[in-house]
Amino acid sequence: MTFDVVVEVRLREGVADPEGSTIERTLPALGFDGVRDVSVGKSIRFSLEAADEEAARSEVEDLCKRFLTNPVIEDSTITISGVVS
Amino acid sequence: MTFDVVVEVRLREGVADPEGSTIERTLPALGFDGVRDVSVGKSIRFSLEAADEEAARSEVEDLCKRFLTNPVIEDSTITISGVVS
Repeated sequence: MTFDVVVEVRLREGVADPEGSTIERTLPALGFDGVRDVSVGKSIRFSLEAADEEAARSEVEDLCKRFLTNPVIEDSTITISGVVS
Repeated sequence: MTFDVVVEVRLREGVADPEGSTIERTLPALGFDGVRDVSVGKSIRFSLEAADEEAARSEVEDLCKRFLTNPVIEDSTITISGVVS
């Protein structure tokens, strides 16, 4: 089966996020008020061939730990959907 | 009201995605088979003060067009949730 996978990689709480801070600081000057707590992460999409959803999830978790994130400073959220058999 | 906003910025179809291609090319050597169509985008999270959800959505759309994306090569998906009054 083929699964659609989205991995969202975000910086852990407390880790400096210069891109987010820059966006937050700049917006009021452009006329956008009321924007707070900006954080910028990565979103990685792919399709994965696996036997079932459990196998897919465990492969993606392994992938995140070993390759897609730096677990010291980053955290990931995995969404698996859109099963096409 | 305060809204939680997630903006996912992705490259448009047909635009070269070197980061995604590199991930896809490298994974088989690391023992991960069956991963296809890797694309890497940005995920921007923030909280937004607005009168109602409609106002929030129109402000975020404006924000995307003017600041968060390059509409020539990028496309965005907006998710508004977690209303805290």
